Amino acid sequence: MHALIVYAHPEPHSFNAALRDVAVATLSEAGYEVEVSDLYAMKFKAVLDRDDFTTVHNAERFNASLEQRHAAAHHGLTPDVASELAKLQRTDLLILQFPLWWFGLPAILKGWIDRVFVSGVVYGRNYLYDHGKLKGKRALVSTTTGGPAELFGPDALNGDMRDILEPLHRGVLGFTGMSVLPPHICHHVPYAGADERAAMLREYGERLHALDRLTALPMPKLDDHLAALEATRKAKAR
Amino acid sequence: MHALIVYAHPEPHSFNAALRDVAVATLSEAGYEVEVSDLYAMKFKAVLDRDDFTTVHNAERFNASLEQRHAAAHHGLTPDVASELAKLQRTDLLILQFPLWWFGLPAILKGWIDRVFVSGVVYGRNYLYDHGKLKGKRALVSTTTGGPAELFGPDALNGDMRDILEPLHRGVLGFTGMSVLPPHICHHVPYAGADERAAMLREYGERLHALDRLTALPMPKLDDHLAALEATRKAKAR
Repeated sequence: MHALIVYAHPEPHSFNAALRDVAVATLSEAGYEVEVSDLYAMKFKAVLDRDDFTTVHNAERFNASLEQRHAAAHHGLTPDVASELAKLQRTDLLILQFPLWWFGLPAILKGWIDRVFVSGVVYGRNYLYDHGKLKGKRALVSTTTGGPAELFGPDALNGDMRDILEPLHRGVLGFTGMSVLPPHICHHVPYAGADERAAMLREYGERLHALDRLTALPMPKLDDHLAALEATRKAKAR
Repeated sequence: MHALIVYAHPEPHSFNAALRDVAVATLSEAGYEVEVSDLYAMKFKAVLDRDDFTTVHNAERFNASLEQRHAAAHHGLTPDVASELAKLQRTDLLILQFPLWWFGLPAILKGWIDRVFVSGVVYGRNYLYDHGKLKGKRALVSTTTGGPAELFGPDALNGDMRDILEPLHRGVLGFTGMSVLPPHICHHVPYAGADERAAMLREYGERLHALDRLTALPMPKLDDHLAALEATRKAKAR
């Protein structure tokens, strides 16, 4: 079994780095072959543009998705993208490890998705959700917040973490067919003392040991959607 | 009145560029002084790191938020960040113009937020939502999708656009105190013919003409939250 941890934090001694290290140790112990993409250390290019391709599909008008499809079919992806894509394709478990910035991914990690989730390779018109091309893989979001847990929840100031993470869970991971495990969230990290940090790290290790007992989040099914569309069309045609 | 359009698309002749141009023309005509930040053309740095600061708050351990606060107080922001922050501070209306990539912002635009929404300047511990430091400004998300409209909605395959945009609306724009206008969304853009495109552009112009008649999306109120927390504490103490 392969695991890929994509880690995005500018500080090498961050709590996110400690969480990453717990995952490396725990998964290695459990028999996984673990790879880490440390995006800041790699100075990973965040911005999707024409420089991502050694091929040109349309020189007049740049459409990212069409250039990705063309490049993927003609060995035209740059080595940094091709290498990350190969890691993604061989992994059984993808972990995204990042601090929640503005209710979302740090730009460098969003850029990893924009560039590495290549159109035609990880998804296609009829290859979405349960028919996605990354089907069979599991994905886990592990993130940290600066705010305390009481700021998050259905009736709390910032709303529920599930809603905050929904575009990532559904629109990236579920969209491409992965089984999305319930997220692991550590709150109030900058204000946690040494004991609290140690407890949070221990808890994460326990969580990773018990991965196989977790139930994936519900995701849409493409066939249901197509059937519903067909029914609507028939009803309209009547 | 000032308007700032932050535009993020790698193709200068994209439909997003046409939408941007409609906004520039319509708002100028309505008497706004309009500025555009064309992030791709500016080669805007997307990744928040130590290079964003000419000052150092803590050389041992990099905490982005603390470095931002320190730099803002000591003229330590790099010119690119300081310049965008000044635009943000003087604007009355912020428009984010981008293609929806993976249910979210292109990395370069997420990076604009990560870097320019400087901690202590646009928000603070007690300066959130209706007490946010960008209070009084309006914000509009204008985005495009590749998929048709029927893929989006409460019961549709990809879910509702409001849920997809919620982290951006609530966690970035509302969080800092801006009045968030209902988003403007153009679907199925790569497949639209010339007539459809013209109609969509006309519709956007009409929308912008009628901005003052739009009702902002509901946002949490900080005082309500503080009152609820206080009530919970009192109930526990009893």
